[in-house]
Amino acid sequence: MPTGRSRRTSPVSSEFGLIQLLQAQVAQPDRQVFQGIGDDTAILKTSPSEWMLITTDLLAEGVHFDPATSSFEDIGYRAAIANLSDIAAMGGTPRFMLVAIAIPPICSTGQIQQLYRGIMQAASPYRVRLVGGDTSASKRGLFLSITLTGTVKPGQALLRSGARVGDRLYVTGTLGDSHAGLDLLRKRPSTGHPVMRPTQARFLLARHHRPSARVAEGLWLVKHGFAGAAIDLSDGLTGDLRHLCEESGVGADIVAASLPLSPACRAYAATHHLDARQIALQGGEDYELLFTVPLSKQSRFERLAARTTFRFTCIGSITPKPFGLRVRTDEGGTQTLPVTSYEHFLRPF
Amino acid sequence: MPTGRSRRTSPVSSEFGLIQLLQAQVAQPDRQVFQGIGDDTAILKTSPSEWMLITTDLLAEGVHFDPATSSFEDIGYRAAIANLSDIAAMGGTPRFMLVAIAIPPICSTGQIQQLYRGIMQAASPYRVRLVGGDTSASKRGLFLSITLTGTVKPGQALLRSGARVGDRLYVTGTLGDSHAGLDLLRKRPSTGHPVMRPTQARFLLARHHRPSARVAEGLWLVKHGFAGAAIDLSDGLTGDLRHLCEESGVGADIVAASLPLSPACRAYAATHHLDARQIALQGGEDYELLFTVPLSKQSRFERLAARTTFRFTCIGSITPKPFGLRVRTDEGGTQTLPVTSYEHFLRPF
Repeated sequence: MPTGRSRRTSPVSSEFGLIQLLQAQVAQPDRQVFQGIGDDTAILKTSPSEWMLITTDLLAEGVHFDPATSSFEDIGYRAAIANLSDIAAMGGTPRFMLVAIAIPPICSTGQIQQLYRGIMQAASPYRVRLVGGDTSASKRGLFLSITLTGTVKPGQALLRSGARVGDRLYVTGTLGDSHAGLDLLRKRPSTGHPVMRPTQARFLLARHHRPSARVAEGLWLVKHGFAGAAIDLSDGLTGDLRHLCEESGVGADIVAASLPLSPACRAYAATHHLDARQIALQGGEDYELLFTVPLSKQSRFERLAARTTFRFTCIGSITPKPFGLRVRTDEGGTQTLPVTSYEHFLRPF
Repeated sequence: MPTGRSRRTSPVSSEFGLIQLLQAQVAQPDRQVFQGIGDDTAILKTSPSEWMLITTDLLAEGVHFDPATSSFEDIGYRAAIANLSDIAAMGGTPRFMLVAIAIPPICSTGQIQQLYRGIMQAASPYRVRLVGGDTSASKRGLFLSITLTGTVKPGQALLRSGARVGDRLYVTGTLGDSHAGLDLLRKRPSTGHPVMRPTQARFLLARHHRPSARVAEGLWLVKHGFAGAAIDLSDGLTGDLRHLCEESGVGADIVAASLPLSPACRAYAATHHLDARQIALQGGEDYELLFTVPLSKQSRFERLAARTTFRFTCIGSITPKPFGLRVRTDEGGTQTLPVTSYEHFLRPF
């Protein structure tokens, strides 16, 4: 979860922008704080040889997850990925986790065990250690708060504010799958998805329930010094691109035809008479990375990237701020990206 | 909030004990983890010159706080104190804070601003920096999660596990005031407290709404190496003494006559026909420190303590484990302390 940011809320369109403003106001300078509120994680200069990243988020039943469509294991898994993804977006190595839960009377110990199992399934590949937490009762609804720390070498973290005019914009993986998976769950909770191939439906559901955190990609970008700026896609491409551009004081052009789409997402869009590119632009919780590569580094980046198993796609470039956020259509025209992104306060689409 | 512990829940009497067990099971050893789940905060060996403390808690409307009896400023203040108190119990210096909130539709931006104001009022005297957080919607109820880090010199943190047979047991401040204040709020939300002197009622309300975190006392204990073990009193003396004794593998005798009571708490008990000592034993959220001093250090501790403004009271001593937790009565007999402590799942008293 971005520190000091609200997932799926637009600072412009909602009252929560005021709260973010307030958070920024009460934040005071400190010699150990390299980056406070305003990026995916805070960066603390805790040691001369290693800086600490720290991020926290709070997930609410009925807002961030729905036990009617997700197992407790999946809820835990996705919650952990949301935090791991924030560390990934800084190019950091995740280290220590604290898990606080407020448990409604309706939840069984077995369900909470499943929740923890999901959290640990997501965290264990990164050798993240659970070092603390809190359990409490909740009168209504399950609430889950995860705090994750990470490490990064001094001065090497990827920031949202590092984008410069002319930089190329890249994303990892494919976009829109998680949203398509969520929509399948909502439309047909129990009857299957007859108009799609079962393997494709399963792929989209897996992308929603079990997204990946792009930790390895973030570390690789830092190792080679390729990325100018980075952010993880939790709010959706449109919303998170806006965050990155605001922090960097730039605009951006996205080439619609270049958006990386999975065959399953294309099939989902086709069978539901939707525009797959719109889903890719606005669907939230992909947890892919969006990052910039300076033009001078692009050819070396492309050459070295080709030797990895990572999937990187160039989707556009950084423009001067007055141009705003635009999409280049197949016909060569441009459209302005809408200000609102996927919000918990609005039903998507 | 104790890491891996549930405030106001007894591991013995509630299902939540299972969850704590689960948390402990999934916690794996790590060379940087000096203390994981099982104390007030985790202790991480993040640097050779300074270790990091980290604690998190999640407070739920209707469980930990009630907007009908507390202002949003007071709710924020108490939430911050709960975390500061955990750092105090380790003898640490609080450093960085992250605040995540899930906000129900009924809350106004003004109320959330008041919440933050209360948090900062509690944290600012310690120069704690707000470095991140998260804002989200909640369908029902306000939820507040605070993560706080602190620092301690390597090997100097006060642990729950450091109590030895023969040690003297001490507490800071006076006990039971917060519970008495809460009870006044519940009994007479708007009609005043005619049977008590208004100054005394105000004292108890202030002790409930604006408790102190004993950070200075904790640092002083560490500086002089006086304390063998320490814990903060969030669950109430009975519950937290049990935690300390369990972690140390010992028993304890409390001398009932020695329990430090404020004149206001005595007056409250008298006017409500209650036993003030029972309130001191079981009332939660005093946020005083309970600590042990080895017998060999007691006279020096008492001598130096007399030169400070701190209030320390010897309330008993550590006994071998088989004796359990006992209270020595005025008549010279002993009573066994009840297993259950103040719980969110039980109405106190």
